[in-house]
Amino acid sequence: MPTSQDQIAPAGSDSAPSANQLDTKAQAWSALFSEPMSDLVKRYTASVFFDQRLWRADIEGSLAHAEMLAAQNIIGAADHADIVRGMVAIRAEIEAGQFEWKLDLEDVHLNIEARLTQLVGDAGKRLHTGRSRNDQVATDVRLWLRGEIDMIAALLADLQRALVEVAGRNVEVILPGFTHLQVAQPVSFAHHLLAYVEMFARDAERMQDVRRRVNVLPLGSAALAGTTYPLDRERVARTLGMVDESGAARVCQNSLDAVSDRDFAIEFAAAASLVMVHISRLSEELVLWMSQNFAFIRIADRFTTGSSIMPQKKNPDVPELARGKAGRVVGHLMALITLMKGQPLAYNKDNQEDKEPLFDTVDTLKDTLRIFAEMIGGQLDAATGEKSGGITVNAQPMEDAARKGYATATDLADYLVKKGLPFRDAHETVAHAVKAAQSHGCDLSELPLSVLQGFHPQIDKDVYGVLSLRGSLDARSTLGGTAPAQVRMQIARHQARLG
Amino acid sequence: MPTSQDQIAPAGSDSAPSANQLDTKAQAWSALFSEPMSDLVKRYTASVFFDQRLWRADIEGSLAHAEMLAAQNIIGAADHADIVRGMVAIRAEIEAGQFEWKLDLEDVHLNIEARLTQLVGDAGKRLHTGRSRNDQVATDVRLWLRGEIDMIAALLADLQRALVEVAGRNVEVILPGFTHLQVAQPVSFAHHLLAYVEMFARDAERMQDVRRRVNVLPLGSAALAGTTYPLDRERVARTLGMVDESGAARVCQNSLDAVSDRDFAIEFAAAASLVMVHISRLSEELVLWMSQNFAFIRIADRFTTGSSIMPQKKNPDVPELARGKAGRVVGHLMALITLMKGQPLAYNKDNQEDKEPLFDTVDTLKDTLRIFAEMIGGQLDAATGEKSGGITVNAQPMEDAARKGYATATDLADYLVKKGLPFRDAHETVAHAVKAAQSHGCDLSELPLSVLQGFHPQIDKDVYGVLSLRGSLDARSTLGGTAPAQVRMQIARHQARLG
Amino acid sequence: MPTSQDQIAPAGSDSAPSANQLDTKAQAWSALFSEPMSDLVKRYTASVFFDQRLWRADIEGSLAHAEMLAAQNIIGAADHADIVRGMVAIRAEIEAGQFEWKLDLEDVHLNIEARLTQLVGDAGKRLHTGRSRNDQVATDVRLWLRGEIDMIAALLADLQRALVEVAGRNVEVILPGFTHLQVAQPVSFAHHLLAYVEMFARDAERMQDVRRRVNVLPLGSAALAGTTYPLDRERVARTLGMVDESGAARVCQNSLDAVSDRDFAIEFAAAASLVMVHISRLSEELVLWMSQNFAFIRIADRFTTGSSIMPQKKNPDVPELARGKAGRVVGHLMALITLMKGQPLAYNKDNQEDKEPLFDTVDTLKDTLRIFAEMIGGQLDAATGEKSGGITVNAQPMEDAARKGYATATDLADYLVKKGLPFRDAHETVAHAVKAAQSHGCDLSELPLSVLQGFHPQIDKDVYGVLSLRGSLDARSTLGGTAPAQVRMQIARHQARLG
Amino acid sequence: MPTSQDQIAPAGSDSAPSANQLDTKAQAWSALFSEPMSDLVKRYTASVFFDQRLWRADIEGSLAHAEMLAAQNIIGAADHADIVRGMVAIRAEIEAGQFEWKLDLEDVHLNIEARLTQLVGDAGKRLHTGRSRNDQVATDVRLWLRGEIDMIAALLADLQRALVEVAGRNVEVILPGFTHLQVAQPVSFAHHLLAYVEMFARDAERMQDVRRRVNVLPLGSAALAGTTYPLDRERVARTLGMVDESGAARVCQNSLDAVSDRDFAIEFAAAASLVMVHISRLSEELVLWMSQNFAFIRIADRFTTGSSIMPQKKNPDVPELARGKAGRVVGHLMALITLMKGQPLAYNKDNQEDKEPLFDTVDTLKDTLRIFAEMIGGQLDAATGEKSGGITVNAQPMEDAARKGYATATDLADYLVKKGLPFRDAHETVAHAVKAAQSHGCDLSELPLSVLQGFHPQIDKDVYGVLSLRGSLDARSTLGGTAPAQVRMQIARHQARLG
Repeated sequence: MPTSQDQIAPAGSDSAPSANQLDTKAQAWSALFSEPMSDLVKRYTASVFFDQRLWRADIEGSLAHAEMLAAQNIIGAADHADIVRGMVAIRAEIEAGQFEWKLDLEDVHLNIEARLTQLVGDAGKRLHTGRSRNDQVATDVRLWLRGEIDMIAALLADLQRALVEVAGRNVEVILPGFTHLQVAQPVSFAHHLLAYVEMFARDAERMQDVRRRVNVLPLGSAALAGTTYPLDRERVARTLGMVDESGAARVCQNSLDAVSDRDFAIEFAAAASLVMVHISRLSEELVLWMSQNFAFIRIADRFTTGSSIMPQKKNPDVPELARGKAGRVVGHLMALITLMKGQPLAYNKDNQEDKEPLFDTVDTLKDTLRIFAEMIGGQLDAATGEKSGGITVNAQPMEDAARKGYATATDLADYLVKKGLPFRDAHETVAHAVKAAQSHGCDLSELPLSVLQGFHPQIDKDVYGVLSLRGSLDARSTLGGTAPAQVRMQIARHQARLG
Repeated sequence: MPTSQDQIAPAGSDSAPSANQLDTKAQAWSALFSEPMSDLVKRYTASVFFDQRLWRADIEGSLAHAEMLAAQNIIGAADHADIVRGMVAIRAEIEAGQFEWKLDLEDVHLNIEARLTQLVGDAGKRLHTGRSRNDQVATDVRLWLRGEIDMIAALLADLQRALVEVAGRNVEVILPGFTHLQVAQPVSFAHHLLAYVEMFARDAERMQDVRRRVNVLPLGSAALAGTTYPLDRERVARTLGMVDESGAARVCQNSLDAVSDRDFAIEFAAAASLVMVHISRLSEELVLWMSQNFAFIRIADRFTTGSSIMPQKKNPDVPELARGKAGRVVGHLMALITLMKGQPLAYNKDNQEDKEPLFDTVDTLKDTLRIFAEMIGGQLDAATGEKSGGITVNAQPMEDAARKGYATATDLADYLVKKGLPFRDAHETVAHAVKAAQSHGCDLSELPLSVLQGFHPQIDKDVYGVLSLRGSLDARSTLGGTAPAQVRMQIARHQARLG
Repeated sequence: MPTSQDQIAPAGSDSAPSANQLDTKAQAWSALFSEPMSDLVKRYTASVFFDQRLWRADIEGSLAHAEMLAAQNIIGAADHADIVRGMVAIRAEIEAGQFEWKLDLEDVHLNIEARLTQLVGDAGKRLHTGRSRNDQVATDVRLWLRGEIDMIAALLADLQRALVEVAGRNVEVILPGFTHLQVAQPVSFAHHLLAYVEMFARDAERMQDVRRRVNVLPLGSAALAGTTYPLDRERVARTLGMVDESGAARVCQNSLDAVSDRDFAIEFAAAASLVMVHISRLSEELVLWMSQNFAFIRIADRFTTGSSIMPQKKNPDVPELARGKAGRVVGHLMALITLMKGQPLAYNKDNQEDKEPLFDTVDTLKDTLRIFAEMIGGQLDAATGEKSGGITVNAQPMEDAARKGYATATDLADYLVKKGLPFRDAHETVAHAVKAAQSHGCDLSELPLSVLQGFHPQIDKDVYGVLSLRGSLDARSTLGGTAPAQVRMQIARHQARLG
Repeated sequence: MPTSQDQIAPAGSDSAPSANQLDTKAQAWSALFSEPMSDLVKRYTASVFFDQRLWRADIEGSLAHAEMLAAQNIIGAADHADIVRGMVAIRAEIEAGQFEWKLDLEDVHLNIEARLTQLVGDAGKRLHTGRSRNDQVATDVRLWLRGEIDMIAALLADLQRALVEVAGRNVEVILPGFTHLQVAQPVSFAHHLLAYVEMFARDAERMQDVRRRVNVLPLGSAALAGTTYPLDRERVARTLGMVDESGAARVCQNSLDAVSDRDFAIEFAAAASLVMVHISRLSEELVLWMSQNFAFIRIADRFTTGSSIMPQKKNPDVPELARGKAGRVVGHLMALITLMKGQPLAYNKDNQEDKEPLFDTVDTLKDTLRIFAEMIGGQLDAATGEKSGGITVNAQPMEDAARKGYATATDLADYLVKKGLPFRDAHETVAHAVKAAQSHGCDLSELPLSVLQGFHPQIDKDVYGVLSLRGSLDARSTLGGTAPAQVRMQIARHQARLG
């Protein structure tokens, strides 16, 4: 315990700087180890080549830790200043691409700490006071993921905006609504696109829920049991922005849980899988709509590729790949769950395998969202402030397709209900009418009134308004329905929401 | 459109009741179909034998729908009264086990609607006005799942309470904290149990997030495009309790999304998978702790089974099965994601396959949580108000095990840091001391002071307090650490939180 | 050890029959257990309600075991006769639906053994000599699964036959071959169907590989270490048909592995997942082809259902459900892998959770294959020996669709190559020609010769044969190509193979 | 068709070499495309940075294709010679690290083809005659995977050999056999290790089954429909070693299937997942056995790491990571299945996403097997021909542990059976004896004869041999049992098998 001084660790500034053990870590972990690691083992166990992306978070976390150590007099002010100075230099080196990452130093944490000690001597060796790599890596991953979630949230908003824009231009375009890929009822193409806006809006909400659970501080839990130093963990949390809406610090309350919890990674991967499921569903439709037998839309050439053999081909590579990448992200979710499922407390090395799936999930998600926002909504021309190059909507083939499957049969049933028939009877009556129309090879609206009246005497000539695609569309004007008035209201709501 | 009356559908009460088409559904779906289904196809496509569990939700949803239809004058008051009367009768029949479920009627919805029409005639045929099975089943599943989530939340709280109670009795019991299953540092057994309380508390929070997204009304979206009747969807939502904190109705805003969205099921399955991952981790430890080489705890005989061949065996079947069931729930999550991944809008029959995985996930979760709460915390004796039969904690073997792996080596390093050594140097110094102790076959605390001083001259006899298990435990008293004082604070916090 | 007699166990026939411990198993597993199981625990841990389907395999295995015990003089001939007599009675009871399955007796094995002892006394208690439930259940599952694989193999052959039959009638029907769902090149519809025959043929081959590894005997491994009785395990294997091609017995060679190995179940689930992936791909196409914009085929009404709201609908429920069920089987595979991944040797109770996924995988696979064979190929009319009700092929829409996407562009490139152009140059030349045709809104074959010659002077009027769908088809006559001659050869090969 | 010459393509050697379209591919795919790809799209869709590892297979496949084209007179001898010359140069460039991989050229195939055309002109442009990237990539992946499977087979054999060697030195070492992690019966440590040999032997067999289905030639299927050139596909298959045992060529029989089939990748990933499940189970045990409370084994320091905070730690990182990597491989399997599940025929871009999971599965598997073989069996010292550094077996703690849980209780039951008791009665009798021993805190073998006789009068003093660990072990000598004689036989069998 500190005695003559107002700080716990007198920093031994008068002693000759001790050797940098990390420099020789490759030879042996510590005095306990009788032999160095083989190269294969090093490669198998090291993480530095994929976890170096955590470097900003690692430095940010270390600086917050050091600031607190100094504030609590666990290290001296001079040590703190040295650490800050060293970290500034390291940050510059990494940004300049001049930092030398060493496999021998295993991971991003030891690489940075070793370099710090090279640069500033004993102060570097004091940085690890009161922490362990277990709580350090948990903190780094949370800080990093928090930032990525914020970027993903912005990208989800961009994609929603792109969809809303295209919807805004296509409210009156009629598409055959399908169930079971059979023509069901006419719907507004805008309404169809807004269904995806709902999905991505839910995804964004889920990401915020995940973020809340990510944004909690493990640091100060040390290896697993807490530490013997009088840390102020809430101060560190505040420095790192790990606070709730009221500004109160959010700190992991149990040290064993803090170092072994990867729920947040699994939860993120699950939320990401849902995003990719939605992207995959949208892609399924884009691919279908681009098929010659639909020809409902086109996407810009730069999102397609040709064939090495067939000169006429223009393939929707991007949506197809996105479907494939949905499988990839789902695979990562499964990897993460499988990884955690059998682990006893507290930290086990299995956890190191959480990083690559998590990193690749983030990368895949960001690339995919960015590319979809542009593929749907087009690219902004900085000069004109206009967007161009989004999907091209072919209204005529859509409307032609909507005429193929007796899409207004339900409207006829509703018409009969309004004349007094119970719905089930009306449904049966219309089935007979459809059968007749099929045998004549025509649409319901093409049957003469007398024929229609043969199915029910109350049918009158106003029925033809009901049987038109436009009439069917306009009639579905309850909340959430496809009537253009409703769709416009929804577009306005989304615009207000997305800013 | 209604003309002479203030209601849309005059209910044709003077007309002879029409035939009940659903009665003959087995023969043909409607006039359109030229042949009945084969038995194998019926079995393959029908869901009534698993979806009948939705019956309460189905009736509740139908009553709310009928009430609104009447309030909006879409059906007459008499029809509404008939529907209510019929549903009361059906509910009684089902509760009494006298309802005859028919495979020919495919699912719970048509079974109930057909019976209603048998009981009350044309009013029954009017119930389906303005809705479709697509929005009906989505509503039923959401209502049902909301109720199940509430039960799961209660069970999660029970399990947390059980853990907190056992923790409360074992604050001073010392367990070897492991990392990598190697002895790391001594921890309080209570602290260890509270790590699981944190996990289950997060699970409960996640379940609330899921519930918020479950508790939204699809009804009124009809098949996919909305409906031509002037429904008041928000009224239905309020009747069914689908409201936010401020009491505002929560209604799906896009009809296509409403009938095809199964995000909530996937999200629930992901949250359930995390619960089971935590149960599996706890089980892993229970099984380990019961193994003769640990002998840290015993669970009551009624949670174990014997062997058909080895007379001495008492096997921890329940935690082992729970580990296995974690795989089962993860499998269901995978099934649900795979199911949705490739579907275009809107409803496709693939979705019917969402039910069995969802139902089994709920059942597995509830059974597991209930059994774990009792296995950990014991059974309440109604007479005495005491619980008995929970896990038995063997403090001595735990403490003996904590003495095995130089668990206080970090304390010695911290001791040296407080004497002025940089942490990295202290770490290296202690590694040498451990090596020496190993070669003597003794603990660090059994090395004579002179030997210890050989490693560093500033070591003094106060070191022996630092090297004791109790000293190590007490010293880790920062927030979230294992010091008994900290652990008691956490127990108090959990007790306040869990009520 | 046996002394005065030529059998090890003199059967103590002179002693009064002892009590049947299994009768009171509900009360306590053995003298060691201080309390009975609660009902919830019983339900959680018991398997009898799903594993009773193993009863035939259980009896078959027990009879083979008893026969060997008698042959080795481990039990007496009278005991063996009693066991046989008892098992005959039990088999009759189960087949008649009169066997009373008891939850208290946990599983199929103890239910049958307890009943046997009721029926034949001490002989029943001798049956378990030299075995354990661990090797017994492993044997039962293997015997049962072997039989199921044989049924699946037959169903896979049926489905292949159905596809080959439909192919046989549609060799000359031209379909647009798609890549990326864009029209690529014309193909024979038969050729397309035969692609699925290849897939299911591979599946059948994989099933045979799995069968080989299933068909190995664990019995005689007892709990985990083997047994002290002089068993003849190879005799049991031969009795049960667990032999290789040469008739040599196939016996698990390591007792620890024998009781804990569930590789065969995982491997089967993986093979089943691939079958379902193929079914799902085929279903994807059937659903697409039935969509009004394609209208390539129809499936019989009995494989479709209608809508509760839209009177015109006829939905391809069976292929859609099959896609959904693919997710279900994949989920089971994931469950089984997750289950095994963390288990130490030897048997752990987690393994009990292997059964429901395995059983449901088998059921799903069999139902799906049966229904697909009939949906594709039709139903056999016993009277006429003719099949009817398979898919209806609409040749005209297929051919129309094939004309839409410049499907013969590659043929033009090949034509130029044959005139001496390097392929890459020919490819580029044709791209220009396609662009011109697009701008004229016509097919390549509709461009005048002079226009075509503008792209390359060596183009002559024989080019129009090359540009026809039929010409393109006929030209692809290398092995495995789509030329009718090739396709007929493949059909003949499959017919010969499938018998 | 060729006219004046004996070859189809006269190679136009008199014409000026045409431009290399691939050089400008970045600008536009072909004349059809109106805009170049954006950089993000390029990065999203290109595969060259991960598929370049296929380069050897790509060149090998191209050479076999070119050789056949020449033999069939589809290209001239001079072109063939040019192609060979170019490929030799390219191979040298790649091996020297001087080949410039271009993102603009998308993938390994176009990179190599473009360079070939740079080097040898028009001959390079003729190489792609009669093939497409679709059949090319399928061929490359199969060739590459075949080679990797052969390496994996060798590594599986190495690991088996290592286990057999350690087993050979530890036949007489007694370990407590566990079921449910409860002491069950004593087993030979060698017997325990041989259980894993069985698993890896099955894995090797499965790999051979996969290899058989991998080793089939898609080339010649072109884009999807076959080709118009008179290819000799069987010649190519023979050149590439794609033959069955009798030397007959193995060629994909359906062109649509050939380009879209990725069954072999899924099947490989499933087989790889099983290998990793076995590795994970073994790792689970290694980690357990290294825990201080077991202390059954040690692994060499170079497979462990220390802690950044706890100076005494030596953590079994390699087995822990291997458990984690099992999750990774399982995730890849799920990714691949999810990827394929919804695809219609024929090739879709989703398939490109098969490569990274497949490549990473292969890498993970090879690294893991190599490291485990060395970790278990040690490293060969080239000088002495001796291995050192494998696992260290601590026989005493193993035997001590085997004495803890009444491991010979079954032996007592068997003893009573041999005296004439039915097994079930014997089992019950011994349960009472165990209960008595427990209450005395001693082993069964420590109960006086008189006490034992109280449980059954026929117990005699020969019972003490039966109750010893060694006696128990020796008695289990049926085929596959743990008796040392049996174990030695198995070791001999494995040695003979593994060579």
